Amino acid sequence: MQTNPFPEVQALFFDVFSTVVDWRNGVAREAERILKPLGYSLDWLVFADAWRALYQPGMEEVRSGQRPFVKVDVINQRALDQIRPRFGLEKLDEVTLAELNLAWSRLDAWPDVGPGFARLRARLRLCPCSNGSIAIMAELGRRNDLRWHTVLGSEIAQDYKPKPRVYLASAEALNLKPSQYMMVAAHSLDLIAAAAQGLRTGHVGRPGEAGPGTGETEPMGRFDVVAKDFLDFAAKMGT
Amino acid sequence: MQTNPFPEVQALFFDVFSTVVDWRNGVAREAERILKPLGYSLDWLVFADAWRALYQPGMEEVRSGQRPFVKVDVINQRALDQIRPRFGLEKLDEVTLAELNLAWSRLDAWPDVGPGFARLRARLRLCPCSNGSIAIMAELGRRNDLRWHTVLGSEIAQDYKPKPRVYLASAEALNLKPSQYMMVAAHSLDLIAAAAQGLRTGHVGRPGEAGPGTGETEPMGRFDVVAKDFLDFAAKMGT
Repeated sequence: MQTNPFPEVQALFFDVFSTVVDWRNGVAREAERILKPLGYSLDWLVFADAWRALYQPGMEEVRSGQRPFVKVDVINQRALDQIRPRFGLEKLDEVTLAELNLAWSRLDAWPDVGPGFARLRARLRLCPCSNGSIAIMAELGRRNDLRWHTVLGSEIAQDYKPKPRVYLASAEALNLKPSQYMMVAAHSLDLIAAAAQGLRTGHVGRPGEAGPGTGETEPMGRFDVVAKDFLDFAAKMGT
Repeated sequence: MQTNPFPEVQALFFDVFSTVVDWRNGVAREAERILKPLGYSLDWLVFADAWRALYQPGMEEVRSGQRPFVKVDVINQRALDQIRPRFGLEKLDEVTLAELNLAWSRLDAWPDVGPGFARLRARLRLCPCSNGSIAIMAELGRRNDLRWHTVLGSEIAQDYKPKPRVYLASAEALNLKPSQYMMVAAHSLDLIAAAAQGLRTGHVGRPGEAGPGTGETEPMGRFDVVAKDFLDFAAKMGT
């Protein structure tokens, strides 16, 4: 007999990059698939890391009010333009650049996500509350059969986590109170920000999320649920 | 061998009320389920029709700029308050009113939707582009296993169809051009407005959608696909 430890929670909000999908190996694989036939030979993981390194600075321009909101697809495109010279990619045409930018929609979920989500979905609504765009989240859902309830997050809120508006706008979109949600992430700062808005919190560890030595092996704070993967998380949610 | 008559089309935008789900019998059933145990005895279909009759006027206040955008849940709530005296429902408490308003999320898809969507989904992205809210569309998807790619439509656009912004904002959200979408609806005016923004169009007839004698038996205009239900439509799309 399963008991439900959080009867008020109706829906789960997921961080997606790292928490649900493996962006690093996926972006490296897509870059190699697209660029190798054109004669390029890079360290694909280094390229993925360099691209990702400009993600937070790009969002910070929006969070700080320095630039108006643009979705992550645009931030990624600008970041790609910035790193191209460093990797000798100055001569790529527009079609190839657009194809490369789609790498962020072609990522694979970690192996525990499919069976974990199948159990969670039986009782809870599952929505991305990511800084990624609607287009990226919908495609990641399709590719990995995640069956999102709907895509929420930055594009609905027109701002980026950890700004409060992202959690609140996402909660309002489903007509539920923040206490009826649990934010689930591999990143403690995301959970701390969600908790400050009244959401429940679940930490799913992803040690090595961006290569050896990266990721949180332990949560940096006290959260409602702490799990080692989504099967463990599903069990702890009583599903 | 199936041929694909619209190779450019990547995604289908669906009108939902009437086109995908039977709002009239669903709202009548939910009203009866909630109100009959409280001792009320109404003509439940007349009640559903009266409620629905205030839907277009409520959206028109937003379209015309007379009132700021509010989502359909709010429009439905105001409409319910307006019709309550006519049905002797003045004394309902807040909990019952909120429960009644959820009737619009508890509607059943027409029987052809499940098998039709299964065929369409194999090749195309399926998104609601409805005047309904994110919450309603997500719940209708969950209830009927529609597996929406994501919810688009009025709430993303902050305006109501047939205003151009709703079709365009929905298209922009997936980073596709309007010509890569087909709007699918039982209502010719919706399709004419979508075509004016460059979308392809598909008419799926729902004669009797709101009772005997209602609904379009024939499309009122020339559309790319004309089908009698979603199985017919799936076949005509080459899926």
